Amino acid sequence: MNKPANNLRNAFSTIGKSVKREDVIEKVTGEGAYVADLKPVGMLYGKMKRSDVAHARIKRIDVSKALAYPGVKAILTHEDVPRVLHYGSPHPRSVSCTKDQYILDDKVRYWGEGVAAVAAISEEIADEALDLIEVEYEELPGVFTPEEAMKPGAPQIHEVGPGGNLVLDPVRVERGDVDKGFAEADFVLEGEFSGGRPMPGYMEPNVCLADWDGSGKLTFWTSTQSSFMVRGILAEVLGLPRTKVRVLVDHMGGGFGAKQDCFQHEFLCALLARETRKPVRMEFTRRETFLAGRSRHPFKLWLKQGFRKDGTITARDMRIVFDSGAYGSHSPGVTTVGTNSATSLYRCENVRLDGRAVYTNTPIAGAFRGYGVVQTYYALDIQMDEAAERLGMDPADLKLKNAVREGDIAPSGHAIVGHGLEACIEHGTRVFDWKGLRQGARCPDPAASHVRKGWGLGCEMHGSSAYPGIKEQGNALIKVNEDGSVTLMTGAAGLGTGAHTALAQIAAEELNMPFESVSVVHGDTDAVPWDIGAFASHTTYLVGSATRMAAAEARAGILRRAAEKLQTTADALDMVDGRIFLRASPDSGLTVAEAMGPTPGIPSANILGRGTYEPTKSYSFAAHFVEVTVDTETGLVTVDRVVPVHDVGKVIHPIAAAGQIEGGIQQGIGHTLTEDYIIDTQTGRSLNAGLVDYKMPLSMDMPDIDTVILEAAPDPGGPWGAKGVGEDPIIAIGPAIANAIHDAIGVRFHHYPITPEDILNALNEKERQS
Amino acid sequence: MNKPANNLRNAFSTIGKSVKREDVIEKVTGEGAYVADLKPVGMLYGKMKRSDVAHARIKRIDVSKALAYPGVKAILTHEDVPRVLHYGSPHPRSVSCTKDQYILDDKVRYWGEGVAAVAAISEEIADEALDLIEVEYEELPGVFTPEEAMKPGAPQIHEVGPGGNLVLDPVRVERGDVDKGFAEADFVLEGEFSGGRPMPGYMEPNVCLADWDGSGKLTFWTSTQSSFMVRGILAEVLGLPRTKVRVLVDHMGGGFGAKQDCFQHEFLCALLARETRKPVRMEFTRRETFLAGRSRHPFKLWLKQGFRKDGTITARDMRIVFDSGAYGSHSPGVTTVGTNSATSLYRCENVRLDGRAVYTNTPIAGAFRGYGVVQTYYALDIQMDEAAERLGMDPADLKLKNAVREGDIAPSGHAIVGHGLEACIEHGTRVFDWKGLRQGARCPDPAASHVRKGWGLGCEMHGSSAYPGIKEQGNALIKVNEDGSVTLMTGAAGLGTGAHTALAQIAAEELNMPFESVSVVHGDTDAVPWDIGAFASHTTYLVGSATRMAAAEARAGILRRAAEKLQTTADALDMVDGRIFLRASPDSGLTVAEAMGPTPGIPSANILGRGTYEPTKSYSFAAHFVEVTVDTETGLVTVDRVVPVHDVGKVIHPIAAAGQIEGGIQQGIGHTLTEDYIIDTQTGRSLNAGLVDYKMPLSMDMPDIDTVILEAAPDPGGPWGAKGVGEDPIIAIGPAIANAIHDAIGVRFHHYPITPEDILNALNEKERQS
Repeated sequence: MNKPANNLRNAFSTIGKSVKREDVIEKVTGEGAYVADLKPVGMLYGKMKRSDVAHARIKRIDVSKALAYPGVKAILTHEDVPRVLHYGSPHPRSVSCTKDQYILDDKVRYWGEGVAAVAAISEEIADEALDLIEVEYEELPGVFTPEEAMKPGAPQIHEVGPGGNLVLDPVRVERGDVDKGFAEADFVLEGEFSGGRPMPGYMEPNVCLADWDGSGKLTFWTSTQSSFMVRGILAEVLGLPRTKVRVLVDHMGGGFGAKQDCFQHEFLCALLARETRKPVRMEFTRRETFLAGRSRHPFKLWLKQGFRKDGTITARDMRIVFDSGAYGSHSPGVTTVGTNSATSLYRCENVRLDGRAVYTNTPIAGAFRGYGVVQTYYALDIQMDEAAERLGMDPADLKLKNAVREGDIAPSGHAIVGHGLEACIEHGTRVFDWKGLRQGARCPDPAASHVRKGWGLGCEMHGSSAYPGIKEQGNALIKVNEDGSVTLMTGAAGLGTGAHTALAQIAAEELNMPFESVSVVHGDTDAVPWDIGAFASHTTYLVGSATRMAAAEARAGILRRAAEKLQTTADALDMVDGRIFLRASPDSGLTVAEAMGPTPGIPSANILGRGTYEPTKSYSFAAHFVEVTVDTETGLVTVDRVVPVHDVGKVIHPIAAAGQIEGGIQQGIGHTLTEDYIIDTQTGRSLNAGLVDYKMPLSMDMPDIDTVILEAAPDPGGPWGAKGVGEDPIIAIGPAIANAIHDAIGVRFHHYPITPEDILNALNEKERQS
Repeated sequence: MNKPANNLRNAFSTIGKSVKREDVIEKVTGEGAYVADLKPVGMLYGKMKRSDVAHARIKRIDVSKALAYPGVKAILTHEDVPRVLHYGSPHPRSVSCTKDQYILDDKVRYWGEGVAAVAAISEEIADEALDLIEVEYEELPGVFTPEEAMKPGAPQIHEVGPGGNLVLDPVRVERGDVDKGFAEADFVLEGEFSGGRPMPGYMEPNVCLADWDGSGKLTFWTSTQSSFMVRGILAEVLGLPRTKVRVLVDHMGGGFGAKQDCFQHEFLCALLARETRKPVRMEFTRRETFLAGRSRHPFKLWLKQGFRKDGTITARDMRIVFDSGAYGSHSPGVTTVGTNSATSLYRCENVRLDGRAVYTNTPIAGAFRGYGVVQTYYALDIQMDEAAERLGMDPADLKLKNAVREGDIAPSGHAIVGHGLEACIEHGTRVFDWKGLRQGARCPDPAASHVRKGWGLGCEMHGSSAYPGIKEQGNALIKVNEDGSVTLMTGAAGLGTGAHTALAQIAAEELNMPFESVSVVHGDTDAVPWDIGAFASHTTYLVGSATRMAAAEARAGILRRAAEKLQTTADALDMVDGRIFLRASPDSGLTVAEAMGPTPGIPSANILGRGTYEPTKSYSFAAHFVEVTVDTETGLVTVDRVVPVHDVGKVIHPIAAAGQIEGGIQQGIGHTLTEDYIIDTQTGRSLNAGLVDYKMPLSMDMPDIDTVILEAAPDPGGPWGAKGVGEDPIIAIGPAIANAIHDAIGVRFHHYPITPEDILNALNEKERQS
């Protein structure tokens, strides 16, 4: 990693510094316990039998042979489990989702769906038992693309929802007068765009462990981004109050949004444990993370925009169809956020948008970093590049001219407070030497004329806590212990992003105590205050603000306590770096430990601070400047260098923020060039479920990345102006690469992944036409 | 159990009712996990090598053979552990204790003290290893009674403290003019009293389990009444901040005060786990609960009182010496509370008290239900009985005449608010038929003239949160979940008293929601707010008041939330039994679940209420009326019937309160008649460490108990006036039995236990003298 941060202010003691993360030693040494490392006495192993047809009714399911297998303790089929229609994954503050899932149904809707679950004394025995379960299917006609699914008379996958295989009513947005806007345009661009089915590829496969106590309370360890959501859905489906479900998660090996669902195996694990009166652990194989995980939504998008000669956008008309797969999961949110995102980024007064999500008999698409916006801005930013070409303008100039401004209405519906996009474009143009490079030769080595260079720019904006219509809430508690140490209690999950470290920094900063004073308690729904979950790029913004409030209250309590000991008033005191002193006489004072501890006649003290924050919505911005090399003989695209310029308002932990950006770029390179989970469109079979046939970029495939973190546009809703950064990088990198490929070889691609085969086919076609 | 409660008000929905305790099913079925049931993967078993001399310096300790034994993983001696002088058990808000313990020292101070600790792969191997540890002692002269220890030139057991084997400076109390008081007396009574060494005899032997994570944080399960005290002492001795020690306790099999210490094995268990990088569990044998547990303080007491002919007490002079055993433990508290208690119960303006605690080379005396007051009031109440005899008054009349009154200064130093003693005596005199019985024949069956009946009265008062000079604090958090269920978070331990149930009742009552809505999270110092520990009869009083405050805040939040949904203001709403309605139109309303859950446009909500309570001090009162049978041929005393009349201010859970009273009576019968842990006064050897030779009463030994719970004198500091009840019954029963024995056979005993041998000897002596 290079230059993780620049132009940082120095007025802070802890934030803005890359302090040591408390979790890293355990992770590096392997001592940190993930759910798969837990093995309570008497634990059984759970496994799922999965469908090998894509759409069928179960005529008969016979578990007798499997149950007779020695070591098999329980088997559940749709005949044994509560029949409760439930959400896969509502946004925890959302009210608009449709319940379309059963724990197990007598129908299967995609190839790989679970039809039975086994608990046995070993994984091997459980696997044997799966083979002994006999399932007789009555196959139903399947639909494997949204086009098929939306045709009149297409087989209906669900009985619920608005019908016509729609997951929800179309999301429609209309502003201004689009027809008038097109009439005023000097020219119109129109294009169709599409994208494949990238998978999150988290390191830790989904895993859970269920254990019931004698009072009927379920303790449930699971790798989730949203433990309170899991608690809620489990409780509802199992018919329990929230107080009878305790969800625990400590370390996590990534989630990227996909672990924001409550999965079929989680209900079954809980039920198997109840049935057997034993702890049961269920862990996905890597293959199952494909079959039963959550992908990004494949999409088809039609985009038409009108432009004036000066580059002004006069109208924007967009239709997007998301492929939801067999269940709704996050489609309502993805469709809402993805569609609304097209109202902004580049200003346009006349906008008409139509977004839909459609059921198909394919694996389930869910939440995934970028949440619908990856798809929309891929199209929007490529079409801006096309417009610049048509206008003979530099794309950076055109994007700068149209960049969203202060007070513009954001996709969330609120007026933007901090607009950092102009700063990102301007700053990146300079540090990347954008104009200089673009004026250079595309083919720098005449001896290798098949190797061509190109430079592209992709822009994005993305919200923290910015789901339209949703009121979020962040919570934090801070306990100041009798030795002056501080415990921060948060429900925010630690996906591996360093969020807990950032929250501890925020607490230490507001307290004005050393970072080392603060420890974080998290990951236990019984212990910590309610949390919405770690997603939507909002943990630092939302929970960070709540943490700051809790810390402010705790600080006031510490000063009152010190005043009691110093026989003065709290107003007369200040605290810097954990030392409390009289403002009037800075040499007189005591440490927090001295203030909290006992002295003759005064017993030790404990203080509790509380923060509850209902956020405004904030937006972060980025411009990614990319250099690629295209080998026109092999079709291979290499990303050589990226200068990602991000406005995050205020950076809390520069290395962690840069890590987010680098990780997003790596994931985005994969999605744009190589990654696609392929489902056979005739049968719904999965064709490449696994990391051998599904190609993710390795460290060797990574470009040089010169991350620039700007604090251009602090948002007053975040702690010291901090905004999110988790999702942003994966949005900007895709169109930047596509635009750079065009710059290199003069070919436009409107889809991802852009494979070597696509490059060669397109070059052949171009040659044929010329 | 009979009639658990009477004259209870019915204005309450939940308190005052014996609701079902959430913990009982797990306890009855055996599914509830105690620390001894935990066995993490790779766990080792810890054991301690104990000294077989009472006072010695360790010349040499050789662990080489033991370490070589297969399966032994680590051994610690005084040469391997941090040498930090620490408290055994400070009162967590106290500042007056002396640190006099090391984890392991090169000196032993009592027979049975730990000198080394082993961790091995099985208990059996650990035991083998103990035998292989070679210890060479240089024996030192020992002192085994306070008398010996206080002699000039006696061997000094500690280098710290005020010297002369005193644990602390004498506690001296003087009010009025004692000499003048005696001069005004019509007669003076003077006597010496003493008591043995009763043990708490909890069902669950001490046990702990230590596990360190890769970040250097210790997780420590232990059977303790005060998890935050254990956290504090462990952290200080191990040199860690409080945030790096997490103490967990779920179910407990009793404590009775003794589990208010941090024990030698607890430090060693933590250190063995750190040394081996494995979880280590250490569990006492029953024998070890005697050797290394905590007894009540043996005592010697001299009491002199002056009386007027009308029964007025003109002066009281008392000296008491407590035997602390080899370490100070709770002696400062016991001496302070026990000595101060003699200022009250029976009114006297001229008081002079002197209380001391003395080190001896015997097992450690600690906190034990009654905390010094058992000893003082045993003497005081017996001497009142003697005074009544001398005056020719009914003892009940004399005690009633002198009973503490409203506004009198309590032992804690504050003015008494609710004075329930008169009510207890008056009520009990009636329901027991005290005067009628006492006028009957002592020998009702002429055919068995060796069997004699007697009736006795014992009185007591005892404080909640009433340690003189200590400012306590109770804390509670209440989370109202999105389904309307309620989580109460408390650090109060669940010793088995039903405290968590009572706290849940208090929360439900204040919320005015059904009891079943409330669940309790406890027993995890990382999760719950700071707590002082479950002792001093204060959980319901202190934590109950904090719980009520938290519930009031949560209730206000629920009403605000409901007001948002009903488009009104919170003032316009009321909530009864979990239903919220418009005061003006009671038929319009919603449930708490409906208020908290989502409705279109309004996402679900979560509410946090907080309570912190710094209590006043309160006193509970009791009068125990006892009928005994004394067999003058065998010396056997049978307690036939007890009518314990207790003023608890307001009863929360009648069956649990009655259970406390019955348990206290059982324990008190044992202490008064059979229980005494005997230490050889020549060698310091333990002579009856175990439940074969140490005789506790069994269910068959129990009398009929007709518990009467009065709500005579509510204390405004407790929830709805509730005061404590945990310690009271064990204080009153002892003198009641001693007085009843005198009533039966005309012999006074000034000590406990009063054994059959004592009865026979005394009768022989009486006969000899007559």
